[in-house]
Amino acid sequence: MHQINGEMIIGRKAVQGKEGTVKAVDPSRNEQIEPAFGLASNAELEQACKLAGEAFDKYRETTPEVRAKFLETIADRIMDLGPALIERAMQESGLPQARLEGERGRTCNQLRLFAKVVRDGRYLSATLDSALPTRAPAPRPDLRLRKIGLGPVAVFGASNFPLAFSVAGGDTASALAAGCPVVVKAHSAHLGTSELVGKAVQQAAIESDMPEGVFSMLIGSGQTIGQNLVAHPAIKAVGFTGSRAGGIALMKTAAARNEPIPVYAEMSSINPVFLLEGALASNDKLPQQFADSATLGAGQFCTNPGLLIAIESPALDKFVEGATAALQAKGAATMLTPGIHSAYNKGVAQLAGVEGVSLIAQGKTGDLPCGAVAGLYAATGATFLAKPELESEIFGPTSLLIRCKDEAELLAVAEHVEGQLTAAVHATAADIGAAKKLLPTLERKAGRILFNGFGTGVEVSHAMVHGGPFPSTSDSRSTSVGAGAIDRFLRPVSYQDVPAELLPAALADGNPLAIPRVVDGELVLK
Amino acid sequence: MHQINGEMIIGRKAVQGKEGTVKAVDPSRNEQIEPAFGLASNAELEQACKLAGEAFDKYRETTPEVRAKFLETIADRIMDLGPALIERAMQESGLPQARLEGERGRTCNQLRLFAKVVRDGRYLSATLDSALPTRAPAPRPDLRLRKIGLGPVAVFGASNFPLAFSVAGGDTASALAAGCPVVVKAHSAHLGTSELVGKAVQQAAIESDMPEGVFSMLIGSGQTIGQNLVAHPAIKAVGFTGSRAGGIALMKTAAARNEPIPVYAEMSSINPVFLLEGALASNDKLPQQFADSATLGAGQFCTNPGLLIAIESPALDKFVEGATAALQAKGAATMLTPGIHSAYNKGVAQLAGVEGVSLIAQGKTGDLPCGAVAGLYAATGATFLAKPELESEIFGPTSLLIRCKDEAELLAVAEHVEGQLTAAVHATAADIGAAKKLLPTLERKAGRILFNGFGTGVEVSHAMVHGGPFPSTSDSRSTSVGAGAIDRFLRPVSYQDVPAELLPAALADGNPLAIPRVVDGELVLK
Repeated sequence: MHQINGEMIIGRKAVQGKEGTVKAVDPSRNEQIEPAFGLASNAELEQACKLAGEAFDKYRETTPEVRAKFLETIADRIMDLGPALIERAMQESGLPQARLEGERGRTCNQLRLFAKVVRDGRYLSATLDSALPTRAPAPRPDLRLRKIGLGPVAVFGASNFPLAFSVAGGDTASALAAGCPVVVKAHSAHLGTSELVGKAVQQAAIESDMPEGVFSMLIGSGQTIGQNLVAHPAIKAVGFTGSRAGGIALMKTAAARNEPIPVYAEMSSINPVFLLEGALASNDKLPQQFADSATLGAGQFCTNPGLLIAIESPALDKFVEGATAALQAKGAATMLTPGIHSAYNKGVAQLAGVEGVSLIAQGKTGDLPCGAVAGLYAATGATFLAKPELESEIFGPTSLLIRCKDEAELLAVAEHVEGQLTAAVHATAADIGAAKKLLPTLERKAGRILFNGFGTGVEVSHAMVHGGPFPSTSDSRSTSVGAGAIDRFLRPVSYQDVPAELLPAALADGNPLAIPRVVDGELVLK
Repeated sequence: MHQINGEMIIGRKAVQGKEGTVKAVDPSRNEQIEPAFGLASNAELEQACKLAGEAFDKYRETTPEVRAKFLETIADRIMDLGPALIERAMQESGLPQARLEGERGRTCNQLRLFAKVVRDGRYLSATLDSALPTRAPAPRPDLRLRKIGLGPVAVFGASNFPLAFSVAGGDTASALAAGCPVVVKAHSAHLGTSELVGKAVQQAAIESDMPEGVFSMLIGSGQTIGQNLVAHPAIKAVGFTGSRAGGIALMKTAAARNEPIPVYAEMSSINPVFLLEGALASNDKLPQQFADSATLGAGQFCTNPGLLIAIESPALDKFVEGATAALQAKGAATMLTPGIHSAYNKGVAQLAGVEGVSLIAQGKTGDLPCGAVAGLYAATGATFLAKPELESEIFGPTSLLIRCKDEAELLAVAEHVEGQLTAAVHATAADIGAAKKLLPTLERKAGRILFNGFGTGVEVSHAMVHGGPFPSTSDSRSTSVGAGAIDRFLRPVSYQDVPAELLPAALADGNPLAIPRVVDGELVLK
């Protein structure tokens, strides 16, 4: 059982693509893993999109309970895969067992959170304005608003979270919760993991009696199948996590369609960490905390602390000393793919070659074929402000420390950085004045602002924002993690004087779904 | 008092542009009106954007009460303009006094609605997840989310609503409510009206002690000043109402920026009206209601009923007879500008020239220089399905009736149309079965679905959606009318473990703003 056949998923079928084959790679050995996966033709893409389009009207009108149960059943079927899933994901990603087990838990919790979101019904934004038939000069009609799904969503999984940001990850879970069928383009870095999870979703859809096209998963290259998927008229939105170049390519394709569609691309972030003087002077654990966060998952987190910013001081020198020791103790770690490993080494070499940038510390090297060596570099504030290339994300465990001459330069650096997923501030009570000056800038720059921590932990909850201004994402109005992720795939529809027998349950008299609604401008809980 | 000087508004200054001049035109006489308006240079654009950028942090942190009062003061200052505003708007637009007085009321009500929205605070989406310091395997941090403004917004007014969709119209009101400074590009069709209203906003900003850059208004061409405004790095979102070509040009500019920004363009809609058999047979007033809606404001409504769809029947023949009589009784009406008038005539001629399209009825002609003659044309369902050019919006009082051979063809026509602002269904109890089949398609196609009415009235309320799939707007996730319009200019920010003294009031312990908040996943009213 749980065999991997090299198949993609087209509705209720498992299909072996005929446009060539590709194999997954074990990055810890730099060797291919069996079996071969067949690549999709455009006919398969066409079929997946057609089924998704046909499924939409039926799927989006499933009751909250049915849809919530479907999401929970997906979680159950993923758990049913047992160790087979974890073993394959370890092979394909080089990530350790505990991390992948944790990520599996996160993935299932995420599906269950969206089941709760669907049952709670706040996402519908149900709103009713009563008719005022005798109002002068003109009567007011009966108006009722709810949100519905945008339509079928194309999902592109990320290499660095083969479960939580992939086939049944946050994009898929939130799109399905919103009532949108999903067509996944499987990530080539974890094809076997994708097949296992894809079949779990397919199984849950069958058990839950969902319309056939509610879920499909294609295998193919981003340049061909990926681009064609985004260009397909049946697709109405895109969820993507990956590189800046990849995200921008999808944005361009989506904007060039006859009907442009929204793209939610989470792309590039260096996550500035401001080390204020009081914190540097009083928190002995800071160097170790930094080193741990910077090397977590071989530095392959979107929220990795790529940029440290501090004002010159003896306390900063002491931090550098401690960080040096902590980093030097870090062993090399296998990266997700040979391609990511070579891009990392290239990025580090480019950084090291920039005039004014100096190496502070390096982690241990080793003989892993895709092993990333941790690194910390430094430059002055003036250098950073003058050299835009220092803002390029290096995906992996290398950070750059900006040594500012004074507070004004630190604030200038904050104002200079591009949009970010996170911005962290390490501060004590003595730093509150400086933090207050920094905060308005950080609000404009980042989706999440955190104090006395590092951004690498991303809680799946209601108040999380995993998003931020460009280029951290393509759409700062959204989050890809947490309950708010469902809002990305919804649009409002207003019903004016629609007969009672045609009104959706969310808007019916008597509030049969018992959801919060805004009635004549006032929020009513149920 | 209330003199018109030909000036634009740069923060607290009134400035006469030096890049040439332009005059408004009275379309009822086809003659220019004094005075000459000076056109902006890039230096003035730069200054307006710089001030807006500088104002943002201060303006967005004004208290709800201060910001709401500012919006209400704008409404008061507009009313203070008295008859001078209405007279100038009549001259510039050719629209009658009662219509413009009504539109002024709508504009002020809209500002007051957004004052209420700001005080209610639901738009902030305040959300709190409590810290769980003892949770295993990892503690949960304290997470709090609120929405903040995107940043300065560029607003492009519409020709057809010189008050309600212009300088202090829905885009400006909702952007200011969201905490975003606004830079308006004044519409060349009503420059004097714009100056009067712009100075009322400026006056309100001064009285309310707002930061200088909270509002500016530039005069210039769309191709130069308009495009440069959208391209300016300080601008973070765009509100536009106008033509499809104009909207698409702004979308392209916004997407090509180093930092792409959202464009909310309301563009092109032909607003299909489905006349089902029971309604045709029983509602004698339908022909007159149609003719009144089609010719309202010389047909210059975004929600004008441009497309009628019905199944062949004796009742349809009778409707056509009645509509013919009703339209023939309609006099020609002055259009907004000579350019719109000639575009209308060109559009009608193109429609009339399409093979398979026949003229049913025309309104009266007259000797108005910019007078629009009402018209009704007809084609079969098969012709409509075969000829995409029949979907082009004709801005003005001309509609096309699609005569379908059966219900299947009617449903095919519904599925064939592009995205719309509105879709109307005329139905009696006997038509409920057919309406039920139609509804899912209309939900996918339109932002507002209405029964037994025409879409030309757009209520300013909580449950209104004035938006819809492309090409009716550039972003189906939004509405440009009603309380929801504020959501267009907001983005979420998450605060993790942020010290109490740095938290915004919306997220503070004890809920000092007394706003609804989601606390640990549950909605709490205050």
